[in-house]
Amino acid sequence: MMIIKKMRLALLALLVSVPAAAEPLSIESQGSFFIGGHDIKSDTLSTLPAYAPSGTITVGQMYVHYQIPVAAKHLPVTFIHGCCLTGKTWETTPDGRMGWDEYFVRQGFPTYVIDQVSRGRSAVDPAPLNAAKLGKTPADQIPAVFSAGHEAAWAIFRFGPEYPKVFPGMQFPLEAQDEFWKQMVADWAGGLPVPNPTVPALSELAIKLKGTVLISHSQSGFYPFQTAALNTQDIAGIVSIEPGACPLATGDLVPYLKMPILVLFGDYVDLSPRWAPRLKQCREFADAVKKAGGKTELVLLPDLGIKGNSHMLMQDKNSLEIAAWLVAWLNKNVP
Amino acid sequence: MMIIKKMRLALLALLVSVPAAAEPLSIESQGSFFIGGHDIKSDTLSTLPAYAPSGTITVGQMYVHYQIPVAAKHLPVTFIHGCCLTGKTWETTPDGRMGWDEYFVRQGFPTYVIDQVSRGRSAVDPAPLNAAKLGKTPADQIPAVFSAGHEAAWAIFRFGPEYPKVFPGMQFPLEAQDEFWKQMVADWAGGLPVPNPTVPALSELAIKLKGTVLISHSQSGFYPFQTAALNTQDIAGIVSIEPGACPLATGDLVPYLKMPILVLFGDYVDLSPRWAPRLKQCREFADAVKKAGGKTELVLLPDLGIKGNSHMLMQDKNSLEIAAWLVAWLNKNVP
Repeated sequence: MMIIKKMRLALLALLVSVPAAAEPLSIESQGSFFIGGHDIKSDTLSTLPAYAPSGTITVGQMYVHYQIPVAAKHLPVTFIHGCCLTGKTWETTPDGRMGWDEYFVRQGFPTYVIDQVSRGRSAVDPAPLNAAKLGKTPADQIPAVFSAGHEAAWAIFRFGPEYPKVFPGMQFPLEAQDEFWKQMVADWAGGLPVPNPTVPALSELAIKLKGTVLISHSQSGFYPFQTAALNTQDIAGIVSIEPGACPLATGDLVPYLKMPILVLFGDYVDLSPRWAPRLKQCREFADAVKKAGGKTELVLLPDLGIKGNSHMLMQDKNSLEIAAWLVAWLNKNVP
Repeated sequence: MMIIKKMRLALLALLVSVPAAAEPLSIESQGSFFIGGHDIKSDTLSTLPAYAPSGTITVGQMYVHYQIPVAAKHLPVTFIHGCCLTGKTWETTPDGRMGWDEYFVRQGFPTYVIDQVSRGRSAVDPAPLNAAKLGKTPADQIPAVFSAGHEAAWAIFRFGPEYPKVFPGMQFPLEAQDEFWKQMVADWAGGLPVPNPTVPALSELAIKLKGTVLISHSQSGFYPFQTAALNTQDIAGIVSIEPGACPLATGDLVPYLKMPILVLFGDYVDLSPRWAPRLKQCREFADAVKKAGGKTELVLLPDLGIKGNSHMLMQDKNSLEIAAWLVAWLNKNVP
C-alpha cells in the first residue's frame, strides 16, 4: 500500500518537467539581507597597526539570498546547508549543472538560500583568536574550528565505504570532485551556543516570510525541528534531508504534529556505520509522530526506485529528478 | 576643457535609465563556480572527536557568482569587494534598494561577483588555529585575522570625521547602518601571501571569460593593477573605486597603457587624513600614465556635481545614479 503510494508520487514527479537550461529565467525580484545578529565590544579585534584593536562588531547574523519568480505559484522554500559547507551547496553542481536554488525558482517557488551563522557571508568573531595570539587568554580557549578533510568526508558523504573506494552505481559526479572540495569551508559550529543561532534566525525568517518550508541537510537537518520546538509559527513544512539526528521519539512531539514533515535519505545508508543508526533513529521518530496523528513521512530514495544517491544528493547526477519528486511531494503535502 | 568633457559624460549618464524594480529581470543563465585553489595536508584540521585531525583540504580558491542577462550587450564586469566585506557589498543596499550586481545585469552586462580568497564562501585554513590550540605551535603564530569595529570603520568609510559625527549632506543610508554592520566579516588578508591569491585568480577569471572589466573597491582597489602587472590578457578595462593605493607613478607603467582605466573617488576626501594622501598618490599615477600615452582617468564625483558620497558609494542613496554614470563611462571607453 505504502509502496504503491510512493510509486504514484514518483510517477507524478515525472510530470514535473526538468526545464531546458536554455529557457530564460524570469525573476520578479531578488536580493539579500541579514536576519538576527547582535553587537559585541572587544579589545582584541585586530593585531594589525592599521586597524584599531578596540571597538564594536556585529556577529550572530544569518545571510539570506533570495529570488522570487514572476507569477510565483507556491509558498517560499528556504534552503539550509550542512556541515563545512555554505549556501553554495544549492547552487551550480560541481559538474556545472543547474542547482536546486534555480530549479525551484523555475518551478514557481520563491527561494531563499542562507549561510549559517558564522559561516560564509555570515560573520565570525575573530576576538578570541587575537586574545590568544596576544597571550591574553590561554591558547586552548581558541574556539573549536574544524575542516573536514577529503579522506574523512568521502565516507561521511557516502561516495564510498572509505577513501577512495566508490560505491557501485554512485551518482555523485566524482569526476568533478576538485570543484566540490572547493565548496568546503572551516566550520565554527562547535564553538557556538546550542541551539545554533541559525535556529532562532530561521524562526525569524519564517515569520518575516509569512510562511516557508524549511529544507535542511545533514548538520542542519535537525535545525527545522529545533526551530519548530521554539515556535511553529509560519513553518509551513519541514524537509530534512539526511539529518544528523531527528528529535527523540520519546520526546515532546506536539510541535511536529502541526506541519507536514518529510525525512529523506539517499542510497547505501545501511552500508554506512555513521548513517545507518541515524536512519533508524529517524524512523523511530517518524513512526512516533504518525502514531500521534502527525503527517511525517520517511522516504528512502531506493524505495522509489531512485538509486545510487550519495549524502550530497542535491548535487548528484540525478539531482533534478530528485528535485522534481520533491516538488511533487510539496505540491501534494503543503497546500 | 576637462570639466566640459566630464559634464558631457554626466549628461550622458542621465540618458541611461534607472530601471523600475517592478520590471521582471530576464536571465539567460546564472550560477557559481570557483577559480584557483590548491590542496594542503594537515594534522590539525580538527580538535573535535567527530572529525579527523589529519587529511587534505583545498584552500586558496575564489568563489564567483554570475548572472548573464538575455541579449547581453557588453563585455562582462567583475565586482571585487574591499576590506572586511564580501560579495554582499554589491547586492541589495542596507536600506533595501537594488545593488549594482542587479543594476549592471539590467543594463546588459554579464555580471560576476567574487568573494576574495579566504573570505565569505572562499575557504580559510583552520589548521594554524588548531595547531596553536593544541600547543603544537606558539600562539603568536596564529595568522593575523581582524575585524574593523564600527567606530574605526566610521571614519575609514567616511560617514563622518569621527564616530558618530556625520559629514553634512551624507548620502550613505545611516538609518540602515545596523544592516550594514552585519555585512562586515573577519578579514584574513593580513596573513595571506603578497600579492593576495585573489590577484592571480582574477587573471584566470579574465582569461576564462575572454575579457572582463575588473571593478574593484578599497582594499581590492589595487588588485586589478597587480593583475595587469601579472598578465594584461583579457583585462578589457579597470575601474578602481577608492583604492587603498595606486601603482607608483615612478614604476613600470607599461601594463597600464594597454587598457582604459578609471580611478573613482567620492566626496569629503580632502577632509580625511586616511584618504587624502591616497587620492594624491592616485592622481600622480593617473598623470604619469596619461603622459606615457595611456587612457587613465581620475574622477572625483563632486567634480561631476555628484555630492555627498561616502567610501561605500555603491550603497549610497544615489548609488544607481553613480552606476548609470559608470555605465556611460564604460560604453564610451570600453568598446
